[in-house]
Amino acid sequence: MKEQLQAGFVTTQADCYPSRVHAMPKVLARQDPVVYSDWTTASPLTRAQTESYARDGFLVLPHLLKPGEVVCLQREMAVLQGDTEGVDPELLIREPGSGALRSIFKVHEISRIFTRLAGDRRLAGIARFLLGDEVYIHQSRLNFKPAFRGKEFYWHSDFETWHVEDGMPRMRALSMSIVLTPNRSYNGPLMLIPGSHRQYISCVGETPDNHYVQSLKKQEYGVPDDDSLRALAETGGIETPLGPVGTVILFDCNTMHGSNSNITPFPRSNFFAVYNALSNRLVAPFGGKRPRPDFLAKRGTPQALPIHEGDIA
Amino acid sequence: MKEQLQAGFVTTQADCYPSRVHAMPKVLARQDPVVYSDWTTASPLTRAQTESYARDGFLVLPHLLKPGEVVCLQREMAVLQGDTEGVDPELLIREPGSGALRSIFKVHEISRIFTRLAGDRRLAGIARFLLGDEVYIHQSRLNFKPAFRGKEFYWHSDFETWHVEDGMPRMRALSMSIVLTPNRSYNGPLMLIPGSHRQYISCVGETPDNHYVQSLKKQEYGVPDDDSLRALAETGGIETPLGPVGTVILFDCNTMHGSNSNITPFPRSNFFAVYNALSNRLVAPFGGKRPRPDFLAKRGTPQALPIHEGDIA
Repeated sequence: MKEQLQAGFVTTQADCYPSRVHAMPKVLARQDPVVYSDWTTASPLTRAQTESYARDGFLVLPHLLKPGEVVCLQREMAVLQGDTEGVDPELLIREPGSGALRSIFKVHEISRIFTRLAGDRRLAGIARFLLGDEVYIHQSRLNFKPAFRGKEFYWHSDFETWHVEDGMPRMRALSMSIVLTPNRSYNGPLMLIPGSHRQYISCVGETPDNHYVQSLKKQEYGVPDDDSLRALAETGGIETPLGPVGTVILFDCNTMHGSNSNITPFPRSNFFAVYNALSNRLVAPFGGKRPRPDFLAKRGTPQALPIHEGDIA
Repeated sequence: MKEQLQAGFVTTQADCYPSRVHAMPKVLARQDPVVYSDWTTASPLTRAQTESYARDGFLVLPHLLKPGEVVCLQREMAVLQGDTEGVDPELLIREPGSGALRSIFKVHEISRIFTRLAGDRRLAGIARFLLGDEVYIHQSRLNFKPAFRGKEFYWHSDFETWHVEDGMPRMRALSMSIVLTPNRSYNGPLMLIPGSHRQYISCVGETPDNHYVQSLKKQEYGVPDDDSLRALAETGGIETPLGPVGTVILFDCNTMHGSNSNITPFPRSNFFAVYNALSNRLVAPFGGKRPRPDFLAKRGTPQALPIHEGDIA
């Protein structure tokens, strides 16, 4: 039954990317650029890197951070993981079943070092270039895929969720994942489908209320259908970037991605930050439901992210 | 509470490899050879292959079968997968949740082509050499790891189960997995821990009655503990053999192995046969419970496997 739209959550903006409204899945063409700036010799990526990102919807940068900086980030991660006493329980997501810590959200606000990292020119400068605008952090988190019992994360386009559940109008956002434990082929690494960002999979079904509480543990709505996924993977293949610790993996908000389970004794952890263009700030959710909480999707009138120069220490 | 031993299922043989009897896990040394024959120039493996198998507990043979034979096996697999009408439902194992077909057991008895494959000199000859005896098929199956919803298979030593639940006395058996769809790093391939076959992880806890009904879907008893697994993997690492279709992966009955989930659109299927030495035939289960059914563990007085020469067609 279609729930009554709640006053204050109805957007007046046209919905370029409808999803969870039809009984059958649909594949829609992307209506937005991938790279919003013209490349020049002053750009923070090479021309080849820029073209690769535009074509594939992701880019791997293995040596962006220095080894000493990576150690500093790993130490801070261990501190946060080891002592969650002072952290708002809402920010802590645990594995279904084992109860192991899976994510800590809003980490760019609760940790000085991750605030510094998110605003580092080497990361944020690339985001500003690719999105052609000032940026702010839409969401950040530390992800822990625990050893032995780390569960899979099913295929999804982040944008689909951010659009329907959070009210992100256009595809003008990107994610950066900073690898903090060695990624191996067998410990459930991030899988990406090259080229998938150029199509939008409109999913079937309707979003239930407070969907996010469950979806952070196990995705059940906003799930792309088998046929669309098969078509994307048969065209683009599947890539699993496996850089050393400190590697930065950038990917477009609409790139289809997921990861398998991890039964190995080797946990997989990363810092994850979503940069959104300041001009692309959230409106009312296009799904017509109450917006998700602030730690998942920064609302209101965000300020441009202050940029930091120099090394992280 | 310790269940009363059932008359007729008590073995008089000493238990060299006790498991599921202690409150704490134990690591015991292997008391049996890995390769039971002396290598000669007439052996069906090279000296290097034989040494590699003895050291690692597994061996990968990419070109043992001809392309035309592989096509024939794939066709037969598709027939069996597509029409299970005439098959005893007990032999069909389905995925928890989705109900997708996960395995067909006893396939070397219900399919003429897989009977032929199991007895092929190129496979059975190697088994006879490594086990230093005539052999018979302890168990066989087709495994389908479905696309999108293929679940993980947790770490285990096959021998631990075969010993406790089936009454296999000694480590004198091996498995052969014949790859029938492309193994990729990301579709939940077999993971093996090199060298793990030289230690026996005695698991904690007790086996419930009719454990096999659940364990074929999700392993919960006879599960190695985290510390032992971590020690094995830190010493030996983890290997994921990724040969083309037709690749044969041999592994010792005590090699620790498992696989992650498969959310990709690419299913992973293989034919799996367990060769046991004729002299190592089953006695009463060492766990003291009723034996598992015949399709999981061939009992009685098995005959030596007839060997077939020439191509499979």
